[in-house]
Formats: sequence, C-alpha cells, structure tokens
Amino acid sequence: MSPRLADRGERWMVRRIQHILGDRTVGDDTAFIPWGKDYLLATTDATAIRTHYPWHSPDAWGWYVAAVNLSDIACKGGHPLGLLLSLLLPRDTDIRTVSAIMKGAKKCCARYGTKVVGGDTKEGQEICLVGSAFGRVPRNEFMPRGGARPGDILALTGEVGAAAAGFLAIREGTAGNGLKGEERRLLLPVPRISEGRAAARTRKVHSCTDLSDGLSASVHQLCQPSGVGAGIMWDAVPISKALEKRGRSEEKWALHFGGDFELLMAVAAVHFSQVRRAVKKTGTELTAIGTFTKGRKVELVGCGWRRPLKYGGWEHFRGSE
Amino acid sequence: MSPRLADRGERWMVRRIQHILGDRTVGDDTAFIPWGKDYLLATTDATAIRTHYPWHSPDAWGWYVAAVNLSDIACKGGHPLGLLLSLLLPRDTDIRTVSAIMKGAKKCCARYGTKVVGGDTKEGQEICLVGSAFGRVPRNEFMPRGGARPGDILALTGEVGAAAAGFLAIREGTAGNGLKGEERRLLLPVPRISEGRAAARTRKVHSCTDLSDGLSASVHQLCQPSGVGAGIMWDAVPISKALEKRGRSEEKWALHFGGDFELLMAVAAVHFSQVRRAVKKTGTELTAIGTFTKGRKVELVGCGWRRPLKYGGWEHFRGSE
Repeated sequence: MSPRLADRGERWMVRRIQHILGDRTVGDDTAFIPWGKDYLLATTDATAIRTHYPWHSPDAWGWYVAAVNLSDIACKGGHPLGLLLSLLLPRDTDIRTVSAIMKGAKKCCARYGTKVVGGDTKEGQEICLVGSAFGRVPRNEFMPRGGARPGDILALTGEVGAAAAGFLAIREGTAGNGLKGEERRLLLPVPRISEGRAAARTRKVHSCTDLSDGLSASVHQLCQPSGVGAGIMWDAVPISKALEKRGRSEEKWALHFGGDFELLMAVAAVHFSQVRRAVKKTGTELTAIGTFTKGRKVELVGCGWRRPLKYGGWEHFRGSE
Repeated sequence: MSPRLADRGERWMVRRIQHILGDRTVGDDTAFIPWGKDYLLATTDATAIRTHYPWHSPDAWGWYVAAVNLSDIACKGGHPLGLLLSLLLPRDTDIRTVSAIMKGAKKCCARYGTKVVGGDTKEGQEICLVGSAFGRVPRNEFMPRGGARPGDILALTGEVGAAAAGFLAIREGTAGNGLKGEERRLLLPVPRISEGRAAARTRKVHSCTDLSDGLSASVHQLCQPSGVGAGIMWDAVPISKALEKRGRSEEKWALHFGGDFELLMAVAAVHFSQVRRAVKKTGTELTAIGTFTKGRKVELVGCGWRRPLKYGGWEHFRGSE
C-alpha cells in the first residue's frame, strides 16, 4: 500500500511539495514577489473548525483566521493590504453563523488597518475557513526566515504561554463566562503588525518568523534555512503570568504549544538596543532570549546545564508534539 | 428555527456578506487594490472535490483550481503574479494524490507564465482545494464588472458549450479512455490570460467577467452593477461543435451551464473592430453576440421573437439551475 499522509506527517509533505515546485522559498511564512522597490507579500492559512477551535463562537473563528494570516504579513515586516476569506460550509449552516464569521474577520482586519476585500463560499461537509492575506514591504526592509548569523541575538516580542494557559483553562472547564485574558490570547490572537513594521524599519533584523507552531518549532524554523544553531537561555524567556499561576510544567507548555503569534527574530548584536527601542515604541517589549551559534545544534541552556531542544509543536496529520 | 444556507442560497448570502463588509465591490470577480499606477488584483476560489469534479484525476483537480483563479485575473486584464494553494486533506490521503494535485497546479501556472508561490496543508474530513491568485494591471487598463453602457457591444471570446458537452459525455459514459477535446475543456479549463491582456491594452473595454457560472449568469453579472440591460442575439452565439453534435437542447446547455471560462465584455461599439483585432492576434476570436440597452431587461432575441433571459447557472447550497 502506498504511504498515507498520516504515515509521513505535515513537515515531510511540505518538503515533498517544495521539491515538486522546485522552490525552497515555498514553505516560508509568506511568498514575496518583487514589485518595483517593494515586495508583494502573500500568504494563506486554512482551518477546519472541527480540528482547531470548536469551543468558541463563530465571530472568534473569523477573527482567528484573519489574525493568523495577518501575523504572517507582520513577521515579514509588511503593511497589510487586504484579506480574502473562503468559506466551505454545509448546506444546513445557520446563516447567523456565516454572518458572525464575517463580522469577526472584518473586526480583526479593521483593528490592524486593513479589510476583507473578497472571498468565496462553497458547499463542504464541514466548516472550513481559508484566509489569504497580502501586504507590501520595501525590499530593503523585508525580514526573511533564513538570514540569521552566528552571534545574532535571538529576540522575542511579548511573552510565551498565554495561549497555552487559555487552552488549559478551557480544557479544564475553568474558563467561566466571558473571556479572560489568557483565553482571549488563544481565541483572539494579536498579529504583531506594528511591532513587525517597527523592527523592519530599522533594517537590522536578519531573520524573523512568528510563533504559530510554538517557540521550539519557530527557533528551528529560523535556524534551518539560515544554516546556524541557537542557544536559548531558559531563564530569560518571558513566560505569561497566567501560565505560571497554573503551576504546570511550564517548559512543555511554554516551549512546545503554539498560538501565541509573537515575533521571533535574529538581530545583529550591536544593533539589538536600537531594535528593542523601536519595538518598545509600539508598547511591546522585545526580549533577548538567546543567541545564534555556529553549527546546527539548537539547545536550551540553564544555570549549569544545557540540552538539545527538540523541534516540537503540533504537526498536522500526525498530531505529534 | 433560524434560516439555513440551503433556504437562502449562495447569491443571497453573498449580498448579505457585502452588506456586513460595507463594500459592494466584494463579490466582483477580483479585488483591486491601488498600488502606485497599478492595481493589485487578488481573488480566491474554493472547491470541495466531492461536490465538483470527483470524476477525474488529482492532477486535473490541481490544474482546475489554478485555472479558475487565473481566469479571474484574466477577466480584469491582469498579468498573473502567483498562486497560493491551500489543501484540506483527510489523514488517510495517499501522498501520491497530494503530489499529483501540486503537479497539476504547477503545470497550469507554468503554462500561463506564473507559479505556485505558497500554500498550506491542514487536516479536513474531505479533500478541498482553495486557491488564491494575484496579479497586476495598470489602473487605466483595468476592466471592471460594472461599467457597461447602453449601446456597447456584448462580446464573447471563443465559444460556449464545450464544457457542457464534456460534462454530458462523462455523465453518459461515452468519454472513453483519454480526454477528448470537450472533456479537456471541462476538466482542464483554459484561463484567457493573453486575450484579457490584449483586450485591456486597447482601453476600450468598459466591463468584463468570465463565464464560470454560464453565459446567462455572466450577462446578468455585467448588467446588474452597470445598471443596464442587454439583448443577446441567439443566432450570433458561437456554440461548440461538440455540443451541436450531441443534438441536445442547445439553449439550456449553452446558456446555463458553466465551466467554459471564456471572457464576456462590454466594448464601445465604435471600437469593437479594434478590440476584436487585438484579441484575434492571440489566436482567439472575439464575437459580437448582442448589445447593452437602457433599462434593466435582459433578453434573448431570435428571428422574430424575444423573451426574458433568466439568471441561470448553478447556485451553491441550493443547486438550482
């Protein structure tokens, strides 16, 4: 029998698709296409409601799909120009559900200075939302995935673990009525548009991605195409108070659970203060959490210990962490 | 009980979404976003394999989703810049299926001077392909949907009915091995990229769309936003030989079955010859099949008769013709 997706997993399939298309840049956060002195940025993200976030309301689904697409524009330093939203819907879908999805997407776009400019609705067996966002960035401000150099600072906006805390609260039924801070961070994520622009304008960021698949996966995603390794200083990683309060194994949830949509960057060490100040003006901290190194090792470093950091996070079709 | 999509149908839902977004241009073939002297064009088209074209091979699915998206760029006069392709796939999908889909999409893009620049793969209950294409057109060459004026010529590239003939051949099991001409037209549609560019460069086209939903639907889609009516001269409509040969009720299949992806335009009458010659240079005929009129009536006109032409074609969630 020929192999199935479940046997190979998402990451294998993405490499196979890159091979078919003959283009290693496919699989980056965002496609970038030269247009005069700028790049046109274009990205897409698909979600089946059943496998992703069946817990919450249709307006949160709409916000979510807009936000994750805008996050891919943010991490390349782009201005968002618009969102396309395709919906696959069963025939018996309540029309209020469709309206709420559109309102949620509209609200997220408006919050980040753009709008839903088009879409498609088609019949499907289950509700799936597929967004495509596009944006614009001057070529000399573009932040690629591969570009980190040994000696660069590994820098993170905001903190990790808020989405994980929200997930735990919802799973344990402690969420209650209304959305608390950490649940909002999971269900209504914040794309770091102004932070991405502020960092990009300094032209000192060598490499950037977002935390959609979790911190450990994102560090590997910066290191692999850059041909470098990294050491993460565990004690320097800013962890959400909401996760700390839960008294859980922070390491697992802070390192390997996705959904925070913070930006993770490689910044030239001599310019780190400048980039930090630029990002700070948007109201968000930029924290140095490690350094990039020669070789390919990705390690977690504590006081008196260091060990390999696995490529964690969720993998579609297999679900392994 | 609150109404369901099946009660309202796709067209009602699209109007509702336009109202929510506060933007009448959403629902046009393609979004157009000012960028210097150009427009960035962006469009998306979703397809669940089960409801659309389960008959054929995965590489034809890939070609199809690329072609229908590129067709939306073509009918605005655009140069295609790239395609994003999101796949929703069950876990037990054969990896050869995924590879074949990507190869089909790649082949179609290459044929029309562009490529697959990115995508996403996620787990879903059934196979769904969602494409997003983007392109570029000088603002003064852009062909909108609403812009037809009374007295303009209604003009069609190529002919109608080839896709319908292919559908009938496949349904009746007469298709045999390999794809014959008409089956190819259904399964491997041709986006009219060079024809669209040639027409747009003349700057004499007031309005344009493609025939994705069939001729009657497309005529209505040009008339409604333009605030005009139209008379189609039935004897002037070029009909595919493959459909004629079948001896079917040509009117139903030629007017109301989609899938031909020809371009339908409103051209200033005094400039029709010029536009026809420009399109002819790409190897494709442009035929005058009627005129736009004052008022809102859309009529089919024969020798000694005229009658209203309904807004036909397939409507998702209801399936009414």
